[in-house]
Amino acid sequence: MVTSFDKYKQDVLGKKDKSSIGDTDEKIKSLCDKINSMKDYYTTSSCSGRITLVKDNTKKLPGLFLWRTHEKTSFGELKLQLENSKFAKDDSGIVYFKQEPCLLVVSCRNSESQKKLFDIARNNGWKKSGIISTDKRLIIELISAENISLPIINNGEVLVDDNYLKFLVKEANKKLELTWKKIEKLNSLMLTTLD
Amino acid sequence: MVTSFDKYKQDVLGKKDKSSIGDTDEKIKSLCDKINSMKDYYTTSSCSGRITLVKDNTKKLPGLFLWRTHEKTSFGELKLQLENSKFAKDDSGIVYFKQEPCLLVVSCRNSESQKKLFDIARNNGWKKSGIISTDKRLIIELISAENISLPIINNGEVLVDDNYLKFLVKEANKKLELTWKKIEKLNSLMLTTLD
Repeated sequence: MVTSFDKYKQDVLGKKDKSSIGDTDEKIKSLCDKINSMKDYYTTSSCSGRITLVKDNTKKLPGLFLWRTHEKTSFGELKLQLENSKFAKDDSGIVYFKQEPCLLVVSCRNSESQKKLFDIARNNGWKKSGIISTDKRLIIELISAENISLPIINNGEVLVDDNYLKFLVKEANKKLELTWKKIEKLNSLMLTTLD
Repeated sequence: MVTSFDKYKQDVLGKKDKSSIGDTDEKIKSLCDKINSMKDYYTTSSCSGRITLVKDNTKKLPGLFLWRTHEKTSFGELKLQLENSKFAKDDSGIVYFKQEPCLLVVSCRNSESQKKLFDIARNNGWKKSGIISTDKRLIIELISAENISLPIINNGEVLVDDNYLKFLVKEANKKLELTWKKIEKLNSLMLTTLD
Protein backbone atom coordinates (compact mmCIF):
# COMPACT_ATOMS: atom_id res chain seq x y z
CA MET A 1 0.00 0.00 0.00
CA VAL A 2 1.26 3.47 -0.84
CA THR A 3 0.85 5.62 2.28
CA SER A 4 0.81 9.41 2.42
CA PHE A 5 4.39 9.18 3.75
CA ASP A 6 5.43 7.29 0.62
CA LYS A 7 3.69 9.82 -1.58
CA TYR A 8 5.39 12.78 0.12
CA LYS A 9 8.72 10.98 -0.11
CA GLN A 10 8.28 10.41 -3.82
CA ASP A 11 7.29 14.05 -4.36
CA VAL A 12 10.19 15.49 -2.35
CA LEU A 13 12.87 13.25 -3.83
CA GLY A 14 11.51 13.84 -7.31
CA LYS A 15 12.00 17.58 -7.01
CA LYS A 16 15.32 19.28 -7.58
CA ASP A 17 17.21 20.54 -4.52
CA LYS A 18 15.59 23.87 -3.69
CA SER A 19 18.49 25.30 -1.67
CA SER A 20 20.19 28.32 -3.15
CA ILE A 21 23.49 26.44 -3.35
CA GLY A 22 22.20 23.96 -5.92
CA ASP A 23 22.99 20.30 -5.39
CA THR A 24 23.40 18.62 -2.01
CA ASP A 25 26.96 19.36 -0.93
CA GLU A 26 29.39 16.56 -1.50
CA LYS A 27 30.44 15.65 2.06
CA ILE A 28 26.89 14.87 3.22
CA LYS A 29 25.62 13.33 -0.04
CA SER A 30 26.43 9.74 0.83
CA LEU A 31 24.63 10.04 4.20
CA CYS A 32 21.57 11.62 2.51
CA ASP A 33 21.52 8.87 -0.12
CA LYS A 34 21.67 6.23 2.59
CA ILE A 35 18.81 7.79 4.55
CA ASN A 36 16.72 8.18 1.39
CA SER A 37 17.33 4.54 0.43
CA MET A 38 15.64 3.41 3.66
CA LYS A 39 11.89 2.87 3.60
CA ASP A 40 11.17 4.88 6.79
CA TYR A 41 13.00 8.15 6.05
CA TYR A 42 13.67 10.93 3.58
CA THR A 43 15.73 14.11 3.87
CA THR A 44 14.20 17.50 3.13
CA SER A 45 17.26 19.66 3.84
CA SER A 46 20.99 19.13 4.41
CA CYS A 47 24.26 20.99 4.97
CA SER A 48 27.70 19.49 5.60
CA GLY A 49 28.72 22.51 7.66
CA ARG A 50 29.92 25.83 6.29
CA ILE A 51 31.87 29.04 6.71
CA THR A 52 30.00 32.25 5.89
CA LEU A 53 30.02 36.03 5.95
CA VAL A 54 26.51 37.13 6.75
CA LYS A 55 24.72 40.38 7.57
CA ASP A 56 23.59 40.60 11.18
CA ASN A 57 19.86 40.57 10.76
CA THR A 58 17.30 38.53 12.63
CA LYS A 59 15.06 38.32 9.58
CA LYS A 60 15.90 35.95 6.73
CA LEU A 61 15.99 38.41 3.87
CA PRO A 62 17.41 37.85 0.39
CA GLY A 63 21.06 38.85 0.12
CA LEU A 64 21.82 38.11 3.76
CA PHE A 65 24.79 35.94 2.83
CA LEU A 66 27.77 37.80 1.42
CA TRP A 67 29.83 34.62 1.09
CA ARG A 68 29.53 30.95 1.95
CA THR A 69 31.66 27.87 1.42
CA HIS A 70 31.33 24.21 2.41
CA GLU A 71 35.09 23.73 2.04
CA LYS A 72 37.97 24.70 4.28
CA THR A 73 39.14 28.21 3.60
CA SER A 74 42.49 30.09 3.59
CA PHE A 75 43.69 33.45 4.87
CA GLY A 76 43.95 34.68 1.26
CA GLU A 77 40.41 33.68 0.40
CA LEU A 78 38.96 35.20 3.58
CA LYS A 79 40.83 38.50 2.96
CA LEU A 80 39.40 38.65 -0.55
CA GLN A 81 35.86 37.90 0.62
CA LEU A 82 36.14 40.52 3.38
CA GLU A 83 37.24 43.09 0.79
CA ASN A 84 34.21 42.22 -1.36
CA SER A 85 31.88 42.35 1.66
CA LYS A 86 33.09 45.70 2.98
CA PHE A 87 31.29 47.46 0.22
CA ALA A 88 28.02 45.58 0.47
CA LYS A 89 25.09 47.82 1.30
CA ASP A 90 23.70 46.92 4.69
CA ASP A 91 21.22 48.50 7.11
CA SER A 92 23.02 47.88 10.38
CA GLY A 93 26.50 47.83 8.92
CA ILE A 94 27.52 44.76 10.91
CA VAL A 95 28.72 41.59 9.17
CA TYR A 96 29.32 38.34 11.08
CA PHE A 97 31.86 35.61 10.33
CA LYS A 98 30.28 32.23 11.06
CA GLN A 99 31.30 28.60 11.06
CA GLU A 100 28.17 26.45 11.31
CA PRO A 101 27.81 22.69 11.94
CA CYS A 102 26.35 19.96 9.74
CA LEU A 103 22.56 19.79 9.58
CA LEU A 104 19.96 17.33 8.33
CA VAL A 105 16.17 17.63 8.32
CA VAL A 106 14.57 14.20 8.06
CA SER A 107 10.93 13.17 7.64
CA CYS A 108 10.08 9.86 9.32
CA ARG A 109 7.38 7.25 8.66
CA ASN A 110 6.22 6.80 12.27
CA SER A 111 7.07 7.80 15.83
CA GLU A 112 9.14 4.66 16.34
CA SER A 113 11.44 5.35 13.39
CA GLN A 114 11.52 9.04 14.38
CA LYS A 115 12.72 8.27 17.90
CA LYS A 116 15.25 5.71 16.66
CA LEU A 117 17.16 7.98 14.28
CA PHE A 118 16.89 10.95 16.64
CA ASP A 119 18.42 9.00 19.53
CA ILE A 120 21.27 7.64 17.40
CA ALA A 121 22.17 11.12 16.15
CA ARG A 122 21.83 12.93 19.49
CA ASN A 123 23.97 10.31 21.26
CA ASN A 124 26.70 10.43 18.63
CA GLY A 125 27.76 14.04 18.52
CA TRP A 126 24.76 15.64 16.78
CA LYS A 127 24.13 17.36 20.11
CA LYS A 128 21.83 20.17 18.99
CA SER A 129 19.28 17.79 17.47
CA GLY A 130 15.58 17.96 18.22
CA ILE A 131 12.26 16.48 17.20
CA ILE A 132 10.40 19.41 15.68
CA SER A 133 7.11 17.93 14.50
CA THR A 134 5.13 15.02 15.92
CA ASP A 135 1.70 15.23 14.31
CA LYS A 136 0.92 15.16 10.59
CA ARG A 137 4.51 14.93 9.49
CA LEU A 138 7.16 13.51 11.79
CA ILE A 139 10.22 15.67 11.39
CA ILE A 140 13.62 15.65 13.11
CA GLU A 141 16.28 18.31 12.84
CA LEU A 142 19.73 16.77 13.33
CA ILE A 143 22.42 19.36 14.10
CA SER A 144 25.95 19.03 15.40
CA ALA A 145 27.57 21.50 17.81
CA GLU A 146 30.60 23.09 16.10
CA ASN A 147 30.14 26.84 16.07
CA ILE A 148 32.02 30.12 15.63
CA SER A 149 30.15 33.43 15.31
CA LEU A 150 31.64 36.92 15.65
CA PRO A 151 31.21 40.46 14.35
CA ILE A 152 33.96 41.00 11.76
CA ILE A 153 32.95 44.10 9.76
CA ASN A 154 31.27 47.28 11.00
CA ASN A 155 30.40 50.08 8.57
CA GLY A 156 32.89 48.85 5.99
CA GLU A 157 35.79 48.39 8.42
CA VAL A 158 37.31 44.98 9.21
CA LEU A 159 37.45 44.84 13.02
CA VAL A 160 40.33 42.39 13.57
CA ASP A 161 43.94 42.23 12.32
CA ASP A 162 45.54 39.76 9.89
CA ASN A 163 47.05 37.64 12.67
CA TYR A 164 43.60 37.12 14.12
CA LEU A 165 42.19 36.27 10.69
CA LYS A 166 44.90 33.61 10.25
CA PHE A 167 44.06 32.12 13.64
CA LEU A 168 40.34 32.26 12.89
CA VAL A 169 40.78 30.41 9.60
CA LYS A 170 42.66 27.62 11.41
CA GLU A 171 39.93 27.35 14.06
CA ALA A 172 37.08 27.37 11.53
CA ASN A 173 38.80 24.71 9.39
CA LYS A 174 39.41 22.58 12.50
CA LYS A 175 35.72 22.78 13.44
CA LEU A 176 34.64 21.95 9.89
CA GLU A 177 36.77 18.79 10.11
CA LEU A 178 35.12 17.92 13.42
CA THR A 179 31.67 18.35 11.90
CA TRP A 180 32.61 16.14 8.92
CA LYS A 181 33.60 13.42 11.41
CA LYS A 182 30.07 13.56 12.84
CA ILE A 183 28.71 12.93 9.32
CA GLU A 184 31.05 9.96 8.85
CA LYS A 185 30.11 8.52 12.22
CA LEU A 186 26.36 8.77 11.58
CA ASN A 187 26.91 7.32 8.12
CA SER A 188 28.66 4.25 9.55
CA LEU A 189 26.06 3.87 12.31
CA MET A 190 23.24 3.89 9.75
CA LEU A 191 24.76 0.77 8.25
CA THR A 192 25.05 -1.17 11.48
CA THR A 193 22.08 0.08 13.50
CA LEU A 194 19.21 0.89 11.21
CA ASP A 195 19.56 -1.38 8.20
CA MET B 1 -4.75 10.54 41.67
CA VAL B 2 -1.04 11.22 42.02
CA THR B 3 0.63 10.10 38.76
CA SER B 4 4.33 9.36 38.27
CA PHE B 5 4.55 12.78 36.58
CA ASP B 6 3.23 14.44 39.75
CA LYS B 7 5.68 12.47 41.87
CA TYR B 8 8.66 13.44 39.69
CA LYS B 9 7.50 17.05 39.73
CA GLN B 10 7.30 17.06 43.52
CA ASP B 11 10.76 15.48 43.81
CA VAL B 12 12.43 17.86 41.36
CA LEU B 13 10.87 21.04 42.73
CA GLY B 14 11.63 19.91 46.28
CA LYS B 15 15.33 19.70 45.55
CA LYS B 16 17.63 22.67 45.60
CA ASP B 17 18.84 24.03 42.27
CA LYS B 18 21.73 21.78 41.29
CA SER B 19 23.40 24.17 38.85
CA SER B 20 26.82 25.44 39.85
CA ILE B 21 25.53 29.02 39.84
CA GLY B 22 23.21 28.45 42.77
CA ASP B 23 19.69 29.82 42.49
CA THR B 24 17.73 30.21 39.26
CA ASP B 25 18.93 33.45 37.73
CA GLU B 26 16.67 36.40 38.25
CA LYS B 27 15.55 37.25 34.71
CA ILE B 28 14.04 33.83 34.04
CA LYS B 29 12.69 33.15 37.55
CA SER B 30 9.20 34.52 36.93
CA LEU B 31 8.81 32.38 33.78
CA CYS B 32 10.04 29.27 35.65
CA ASP B 33 7.63 29.97 38.51
CA LYS B 34 4.76 30.34 36.06
CA ILE B 35 5.56 27.06 34.30
CA ASN B 36 5.96 25.25 37.61
CA SER B 37 2.62 26.59 38.85
CA MET B 38 0.85 24.85 35.95
CA LYS B 39 -0.31 21.29 36.47
CA ASP B 40 1.17 19.92 33.22
CA TYR B 41 4.75 21.19 33.43
CA TYR B 42 7.87 21.56 35.53
CA THR B 43 11.30 22.97 34.71
CA THR B 44 14.45 20.93 35.29
CA SER B 45 17.00 23.47 34.05
CA SER B 46 17.06 27.15 33.10
CA CYS B 47 19.37 29.96 32.02
CA SER B 48 18.42 33.55 31.16
CA GLY B 49 21.34 33.81 28.72
CA ARG B 50 24.94 34.50 29.63
CA ILE B 51 28.36 35.78 28.70
CA THR B 52 31.28 33.44 29.41
CA LEU B 53 34.98 32.78 28.99
CA VAL B 54 35.36 29.05 28.49
CA LYS B 55 38.14 26.65 27.59
CA ASP B 56 37.73 25.17 24.12
CA ASN B 57 37.14 21.54 24.95
CA THR B 58 34.49 19.23 23.58
CA LYS B 59 34.26 17.36 26.88
CA LYS B 60 32.40 18.89 29.83
CA LEU B 61 35.19 18.79 32.42
CA PRO B 62 35.25 20.62 35.76
CA GLY B 63 36.86 24.05 35.51
CA LEU B 64 35.85 24.56 31.88
CA PHE B 65 34.35 27.95 32.67
CA LEU B 66 36.83 30.67 33.55
CA TRP B 67 34.11 33.31 33.96
CA ARG B 68 30.36 33.60 33.48
CA THR B 69 27.78 36.28 34.05
CA HIS B 70 24.03 36.56 33.45
CA GLU B 71 24.24 40.35 33.44
CA LYS B 72 25.43 42.78 30.81
CA THR B 73 29.16 43.35 31.02
CA SER B 74 31.57 46.27 30.48
CA PHE B 75 34.91 46.74 28.76
CA GLY B 76 36.59 47.10 32.18
CA GLU B 77 35.11 43.89 33.52
CA LEU B 78 35.97 41.90 30.40
CA LYS B 79 39.58 43.18 30.49
CA LEU B 80 39.87 42.09 34.11
CA GLN B 81 38.41 38.65 33.42
CA LEU B 82 40.69 38.18 30.42
CA GLU B 83 43.72 39.03 32.61
CA ASN B 84 42.59 36.43 35.16
CA SER B 85 41.94 33.84 32.44
CA LYS B 86 45.29 34.30 30.68
CA PHE B 87 47.01 32.46 33.46
CA ALA B 88 44.56 29.58 33.74
CA LYS B 89 46.17 26.23 33.03
CA ASP B 90 44.65 24.71 29.93
CA ASP B 91 45.51 21.76 27.67
CA SER B 92 44.84 23.31 24.30
CA GLY B 93 45.59 26.88 25.34
CA ILE B 94 42.52 28.25 23.54
CA VAL B 95 39.83 30.18 25.43
CA TYR B 96 36.52 31.18 23.79
CA PHE B 97 34.37 34.24 24.51
CA LYS B 98 30.71 33.24 24.26
CA GLN B 99 27.34 34.90 24.48
CA GLU B 100 24.67 32.20 24.79
CA PRO B 101 20.85 32.47 24.56
CA CYS B 102 18.18 31.74 27.16
CA LEU B 103 17.38 28.08 27.76
CA LEU B 104 14.66 26.10 29.52
CA VAL B 105 14.32 22.34 29.93
CA VAL B 106 10.71 21.42 30.69
CA SER B 107 9.14 18.09 31.61
CA CYS B 108 5.55 17.70 30.36
CA ARG B 109 2.61 15.59 31.55
CA ASN B 110 1.57 14.20 28.16
CA SER B 111 2.30 14.53 24.45
CA GLU B 112 -0.48 17.07 24.00
CA SER B 113 0.92 19.49 26.61
CA GLN B 114 4.42 18.81 25.27
CA LYS B 115 3.49 19.77 21.72
CA LYS B 116 1.54 22.83 22.91
CA LEU B 117 4.36 24.51 24.84
CA PHE B 118 6.96 23.49 22.25
CA ASP B 119 4.98 25.06 19.39
CA ILE B 120 4.39 28.29 21.32
CA ALA B 121 8.11 28.65 22.12
CA ARG B 122 9.43 27.69 18.69
CA ASN B 123 7.01 30.09 16.94
CA ASN B 124 7.92 32.99 19.23
CA GLY B 125 11.65 33.37 18.87
CA TRP B 126 12.91 30.32 20.78
CA LYS B 127 14.09 29.07 17.41
CA LYS B 128 16.56 26.42 18.49
CA SER B 129 13.97 24.50 20.50
CA GLY B 130 13.43 20.76 20.17
CA ILE B 131 11.51 17.88 21.69
CA ILE B 132 14.23 15.67 23.12
CA SER B 133 12.35 12.83 24.80
CA THR B 134 9.01 11.29 23.90
CA ASP B 135 8.80 8.05 25.86
CA LYS B 136 9.02 7.65 29.64
CA ARG B 137 9.53 11.32 30.34
CA LEU B 138 8.34 13.95 27.91
CA ILE B 139 11.04 16.59 27.74
CA ILE B 140 11.40 19.76 25.66
CA GLU B 141 14.49 21.91 25.39
CA LEU B 142 13.52 25.51 24.66
CA ILE B 143 16.42 27.60 23.35
CA SER B 144 16.57 31.00 21.70
CA ALA B 145 18.99 31.90 18.90
CA GLU B 146 21.26 34.74 20.10
CA ASN B 147 24.85 33.61 19.82
CA ILE B 148 28.43 34.90 19.75
CA SER B 149 31.39 32.49 19.96
CA LEU B 150 35.01 33.28 19.12
CA PRO B 151 38.56 32.34 20.11
CA ILE B 152 39.86 35.17 22.33
CA ILE B 153 42.94 33.81 24.13
CA ASN B 154 45.62 31.47 22.78
CA ASN B 155 48.48 30.32 25.03
CA GLY B 156 48.02 33.22 27.41
CA GLU B 157 47.76 35.90 24.72
CA VAL B 158 44.61 37.96 24.09
CA LEU B 159 44.07 37.75 20.32
CA VAL B 160 42.10 40.99 19.68
CA ASP B 161 42.71 44.65 20.53
CA ASP B 162 40.85 46.91 22.98
CA ASN B 163 38.72 48.51 20.26
CA TYR B 164 37.45 45.09 19.27
CA LEU B 165 36.76 44.20 22.91
CA LYS B 166 34.68 47.37 23.29
CA PHE B 167 32.69 46.51 20.16
CA LEU B 168 32.26 42.90 21.31
CA VAL B 169 30.90 43.99 24.70
CA LYS B 170 28.29 46.15 22.95
CA GLU B 171 27.26 43.28 20.66
CA ALA B 172 27.07 40.74 23.49
CA ASN B 173 25.00 43.09 25.66
CA LYS B 174 22.68 43.79 22.71
CA LYS B 175 22.13 40.06 22.18
CA LEU B 176 21.52 39.50 25.91
CA GLU B 177 18.79 42.13 25.74
CA LEU B 178 17.27 40.37 22.72
CA THR B 179 17.28 37.05 24.59
CA TRP B 180 15.61 38.66 27.63
CA LYS B 181 12.85 39.89 25.31
CA LYS B 182 12.21 36.27 24.29
CA ILE B 183 11.76 35.39 27.96
CA GLU B 184 9.31 38.27 28.47
CA LYS B 185 7.36 37.28 25.37
CA LEU B 186 7.03 33.63 26.39
CA ASN B 187 6.09 34.77 29.90
CA SER B 188 3.24 36.90 28.58
CA LEU B 189 2.11 34.17 26.18
CA MET B 190 1.93 31.65 29.02
CA LEU B 191 -0.68 33.86 30.64
CA THR B 192 -2.90 34.18 27.61
CA THR B 193 -2.42 30.87 25.81
CA LEU B 194 -1.87 28.12 28.31
CA ASP B 195 -3.65 29.17 31.49
